Order: sequence, then C-alpha cells, then structure tokens
Amino acid sequence: MNAPHKDDVDELLTRMGKAARDASRVMAKADKSQRAAALHAIAKGIKACEKQILAANARDIEAATKAGLSPAFLDRMRLSPASVQGMAKGIETVAWLPDPIGDAEAEWTRPNGLKIARVRVPIGVIGIIYESRPNVTADAAALCIKSGNAVILRGGSEALGTARAIQTAIELALERVSLPKEAVQVVPTADRAAVGRLLAGLNGNIDLIIPRGGKSLVERVHKDARVPVLAHLEGNCHVYVDKGADLKKAIDIALNSKMRRVSVCGAAETLLVDAAGAGRLLGPLVEAFLDAGCEVRGDRITQTVDSRVEAAEEDDWYTEYLDAIIAVKVVDGVEGAAAHIAKYGSAHTESIVTEDKAAAETFLREVDSAIVLHNASTQFADGAEFGLGAEIGIATGRLHARGPVGARELTTYKYVVRGYGQTRP
Amino acid sequence: MNAPHKDDVDELLTRMGKAARDASRVMAKADKSQRAAALHAIAKGIKACEKQILAANARDIEAATKAGLSPAFLDRMRLSPASVQGMAKGIETVAWLPDPIGDAEAEWTRPNGLKIARVRVPIGVIGIIYESRPNVTADAAALCIKSGNAVILRGGSEALGTARAIQTAIELALERVSLPKEAVQVVPTADRAAVGRLLAGLNGNIDLIIPRGGKSLVERVHKDARVPVLAHLEGNCHVYVDKGADLKKAIDIALNSKMRRVSVCGAAETLLVDAAGAGRLLGPLVEAFLDAGCEVRGDRITQTVDSRVEAAEEDDWYTEYLDAIIAVKVVDGVEGAAAHIAKYGSAHTESIVTEDKAAAETFLREVDSAIVLHNASTQFADGAEFGLGAEIGIATGRLHARGPVGARELTTYKYVVRGYGQTRP
Repeated sequence: MNAPHKDDVDELLTRMGKAARDASRVMAKADKSQRAAALHAIAKGIKACEKQILAANARDIEAATKAGLSPAFLDRMRLSPASVQGMAKGIETVAWLPDPIGDAEAEWTRPNGLKIARVRVPIGVIGIIYESRPNVTADAAALCIKSGNAVILRGGSEALGTARAIQTAIELALERVSLPKEAVQVVPTADRAAVGRLLAGLNGNIDLIIPRGGKSLVERVHKDARVPVLAHLEGNCHVYVDKGADLKKAIDIALNSKMRRVSVCGAAETLLVDAAGAGRLLGPLVEAFLDAGCEVRGDRITQTVDSRVEAAEEDDWYTEYLDAIIAVKVVDGVEGAAAHIAKYGSAHTESIVTEDKAAAETFLREVDSAIVLHNASTQFADGAEFGLGAEIGIATGRLHARGPVGARELTTYKYVVRGYGQTRP
Repeated sequence: MNAPHKDDVDELLTRMGKAARDASRVMAKADKSQRAAALHAIAKGIKACEKQILAANARDIEAATKAGLSPAFLDRMRLSPASVQGMAKGIETVAWLPDPIGDAEAEWTRPNGLKIARVRVPIGVIGIIYESRPNVTADAAALCIKSGNAVILRGGSEALGTARAIQTAIELALERVSLPKEAVQVVPTADRAAVGRLLAGLNGNIDLIIPRGGKSLVERVHKDARVPVLAHLEGNCHVYVDKGADLKKAIDIALNSKMRRVSVCGAAETLLVDAAGAGRLLGPLVEAFLDAGCEVRGDRITQTVDSRVEAAEEDDWYTEYLDAIIAVKVVDGVEGAAAHIAKYGSAHTESIVTEDKAAAETFLREVDSAIVLHNASTQFADGAEFGLGAEIGIATGRLHARGPVGARELTTYKYVVRGYGQTRP
C-alpha cells in the first residue's frame, strides 16, 4: 500500500468525522434495547469471524516480526482463539450492564411548577488513540456503543490489519440491527498525519479524545489536542503504612500493590512508612520486598534496615518504575504521607494500611487522587474490579471524570424542563 | 499607578497561583459548617463595608466617565446601597444551599467486600475572567467558597477599585472564620498580560477557567486557554411552535422568550413554526412580535404574512441578536426543527410549544442542547430559576457540566474504597 498523500489523509479524516457525527445522532436516538442488541450481535459476529481475525493477526505478526519488533511487543498484539473468545465475552459483559442513556439522575419541581430533570446523554463522537493491543478495538467500540456515542479508532499501525478485521465483524453486526456502521470507524491508514487531524478535532466533529498507551503517546495527546482529553499520564501510586497498621496486612497489601503485576498503571511505586511505627513495620516490609525479588531504593532510615537497600535520589519519588523496584520513605504520619503524595504523586491511586479508623478517614479525605483506598491493594484500580464491567482507561484530570472510565463516564447530561405555559416574570 | 513590568506581572501571578493552590487544600479540608460560616461572615462583612465599597465604586465610575465609557457600561458597573445589600443577600442564599462536598453520590459493595463510594470533592483552583459587573466578584467568590475551591478573580480594569473593596470585605470575613484569605484573590493589576498568564494555567495551579462576558472575551479564552474552560460562546436559542400548540400559550411563551429581556443569553433568537400548523399559528405569532415592537426577519412564507416582515438571510439563522429582532422560519415538524437547531444553534436553550405529548418528548430527546424545555420560556435558562441558588454562567460544552453552573458544577469526584486487607488475585 502506498502512503496516501497528506491532502488525501485530510480529506479522509474530514469525511470520517462527518460520518461519525451523523452516526452519533442516530446512536443517541436508538433505544436501550437496540444498543444492547448491537452488542450481542457484535459478540456473536466476532466469534463467527474468529478465523478471519486470527488470519489478519497472523499477517500483522509476520510483518512485525520481519520489522524486528520486540518479543514483548509481539506478545501484546498476538491473538489466540481463546483471546478472540475473551474479546466476545467482554462485549457480552458490556451488553448486560445497565444502559446509562436517558436516565434522569436528578429531578425536582420548582415553585412555579416547572419540572426539571438532569438526564444522561451521550457525549457524541469519541476519538481513541491507542497502541497495538487488538482487544482495545473491541472494548472501546463496545463501551462507546453502550453509551450511545460514535467512535473513531486509531490503533497502532502494526496491528491495523487485525483492527480492520475486528471492525468488519462490528460493522456487519451494526447493520444487522439497523444501526449505522459509521458508529465504529477504524482509521484505515498508518499515516501519522491522521493522529494530528484527530487531535485537532476534525472541524468540531470530535468531542473527546482518549489516548491509551505509554507516557510519550499521552504526553503528545495532552500537548496537541484541541479538544478535551480523558487520560492519565502516569500512575505513580503510593501505599502508606500507618503506625496503626496490622503488619501482616501491610505486607500483603504492599507486596500485592507492587508485585502482582509491576507494569500496570495501578502498581505501587513508592511505599511510605509512618515514622511512629517504623521500628515495628519498616524492617519486615523491606525484607518482604527484597525476598520477593524487588529492588528497594530507600531514604536514609530505610537504608539502615538492610545493606541491599540502595539510596533513593530525589528523582525516585517522582518515578513510575513499572518494574520490580520500589522507593521507600519514612514520613510523619498521615499528614506527612499526604504532603509527600501531593508533591510527588500523579493523582492516580493511593492506599493507606491501618486499623486506626480516624487515621484512615483523614487519609481518604485529604489525599486528593482519583482513587484512594483503605486496607486494599492499589492494583484494584481497574474498571472491571470496580464493577463498571469494562473500562477504556483511568483518568487523572480533575474535570468530567476521574478514575476508571466506563460507559457512564462516556456520557454527559442535559436539562429537560417540562412546563404548561410558564413565562418568566 | 505605573503599569508593572511584564516580569513583575509574571511573578505576581505565579505567586498568586501558588497561594491559591495552598488555600485550595485548606478549603477542601474545611467542613461544611466552616464554609457556611465563611459565607455568612462575608455577607455581614459586605454590609458592614457598604460605605467603603460605594466610595471605591464612585471613584471607578468617575474615572470611567472621564475615560468616555458609554452610559450602558457605566450602568453595569454602578453600585447603589440597594445593590450592595442585594450582593450580601445573594451570598446568604448560597450559604443556605446544600453543601455538595464530601457527599457520596453513589455507593456499592463488590463481591470481594470492597466498599466503593464516589464522593464529591472540589475542583481545586478556579480562574474567573469577567468584565466590569461588580456583583460577579461577590457571586463567584461565594460559589467557589461553597464548593470548597480557591478562586482567582480577574475583573474588568475599570471596576478594579470596586472589586478590591469587595475583596477586602471577603478577606476579613475569611480570616474571622480561620480560613485562608488567599482562597479569594483579585488580580490587583489592570495589566492585560495577567489574562494570558491565567489562561496558561499558572504552572498547573489553575484547574478551570470560567469566562463571563461578551463573545470576544469568551472566544479569546477558548482560543488561548491551556486548561479546561466552562462557558458558552453564545445563546442562539430557539422556540419551536408545533402544529399541536395552543395559540395563546405559543404567543405568551414566544414573546416572553424574546422580549422579557432581549440582552440575556437565554433570549430566543429564532422562532420556528411547524408547516402543518402555519396557517393557524404563523400570522398571529408574527403580528404579536410586530405589535410588541420586535423586528421580524422571515423566510419566504413568513414574509407573506405582513409587509413589515423583512427578508431573513442565511446569516440570520446563525445570529444571536441580543436585540428586539427575531428570525422566523417555517419547518417540517419536530424533525425539521431539530435539524435546523442542530445546524444553526449554539446548544444553549430551546423550547417546544405543543399540547402533543409525543411531539414534545421527541423534541426533548432529540434536540441536544444544554437545556430543552416544553411549554416554557427559554428565559428560564438561569441557575436561580433552576433552584441552584446562584450561577456563575451557563455552559454549552459537552464535558463536565452543561447548563447553569452552580456550586455542584464546581466540584468533581474521587473514588473512596474501603477494605479489610483485600489483595487482587
């Protein structure tokens, strides 16, 4: 395939934006049962197209292998019969979730008789920019359909064939239930100019951009987007072990927060230990990490615990390792922990371990991250774990949505006012 | 006063941003009764400082008169003893509203025992850029305090003396209830560079910008802001009179929507009349407007009704007149009205007049503006009329908040998760 000319990309994306806007109007009008039927049809369609999807994926993998991409990269984009079935099952799960559209989340009547309702409506057209995980294509499409939106998907160029095979299954299903196939579009070119056009908003035809991927992708989106963005730049998550902590619980939670999977955004990166409990807690915590094969970088006090503890630099407190490394610092109680998190954290997810309810409530109130936990692992930072069914990522901005972004977070509201002839005096 | 050097403005604004961030942390921790006490103290303080506020206002008016500003402009910035009392009363109203902070708007328990709550928290630091209405200083400060935020106010330079006098009363009251006076800051310089600095976000110390003023101000803010913006660019509002309308109701609502106050953003600018009912409805509606002294610009059919009807150009359908002029067009039923509004409207406020419930529900569902009404005047588009107590403007964007922006809309949420040692398998 020849790379298309820049003007062609512009024209293509402009056309896709218009088609998405038109489709979004139809999706918003569709009723709940029609949107649910679409999702069931898509799940069925993906199962039926398993062979085609796997064949496209095999071609993508072959090309990526020839291009010399890393085994880890290939792993992330590789599909198996089981993962295609999993994709279909994920869409079924979303189909069975409550549909947020059209519900009045608040209603009241004014003294003049006007009945006011705040009603959930779709956002409109969502642009999703992601890397080469094929399941994002299916998950993102499902959540956008559930929430009555249209979506334009721009995945990594290496998995474009796979994404288009999945899209074909989705399009057939949408047509089967009489919804516009333009509700889910995949940018069909690997040309990077397409990303710039999406970020510019396609002449007002993109309402929201969601980037899914590494820090450099998210940084670029934040820098260049001319439309709102829901994302997290990084997850520099903290576990704070308070003097009132149960030691066993503290070890279990801290280890799980870091080591269950070190590469996820909800993985803990820094362990904070209350100075007033350090004598009892710090040693066993540090030993537990070292024994689990985790590198420990500590402040001066932590370095006295074990000679294997390396010295933490100022930079370590800012670092999202995404690796088996943890920074450890002794702080002055909840206030010290909250101050450290406010200074170094990324407002993603933080946990306090303590049996002291008052200390826990202070932490939960004062730490202003998207997710704050008491006596639980930071690795619960996940839409499915929250019961949202699926998520399209975690947001750490302050506006619109924070934490896991599920179907509800892809909606907005309008005010519906019912009267019987009222005029304003 | 000499204009400060650009570097001085930069330094001043940077310092204000840091102080606001620190103050916002204290405001977020303060409890509801403390925030309410602050508002009561401010209302009292403004009454007590009436003389100083009026004196500062008289000086501003004198300078503005010398500078040759228009009588309308002077009117908007002029305070009287009654308007200062009204300002205090408005703050009392906000003090008695329910406090949104800390409330769990949703709570559920997961199968693993985790208790998840979505809790309202303040946004943080809000920047408000407005023109020369002194009451915005008081209203905006009150709503931001109510919602636990800190605020930096940048009003029109002509009313700076008045704004600072109001701020002094606010500062004294905040100190009296042991809250930081930096929670409400007024940019003390008329230097326009300050606006640019606010829009750039003060090194991450501004979370949200709200512009209040004319279209050119809002356009500039949308263009240059590097932080989220809540605003409406214009209110090109529509009244659609359906074939099922009661004629008297239609005339009352249409006239009130346009003529009660022609200069507000909720004023109707275009009247749409259902072709199927035009024979009965169009003539009397047009005559009512003409008799009320309103210029009518109509499409071809409307021009046949009365020789005083001028021809509407394509541009008229896009125009927010803010004047005693209305554009009138005949459309094909609810679908025609919805299509016209989607094409030409500004997603602010639209009303349908009809006795046909099904037509009304279709309109309310399909017209995707911040506020849609049935059988009521578009001039109800106002936070106080909605029962929000006060508003800081109307938002027509699609993210975070739409319609009147009151205290609740100045909040966001976080997830609070309570466990007893859960780790993720």
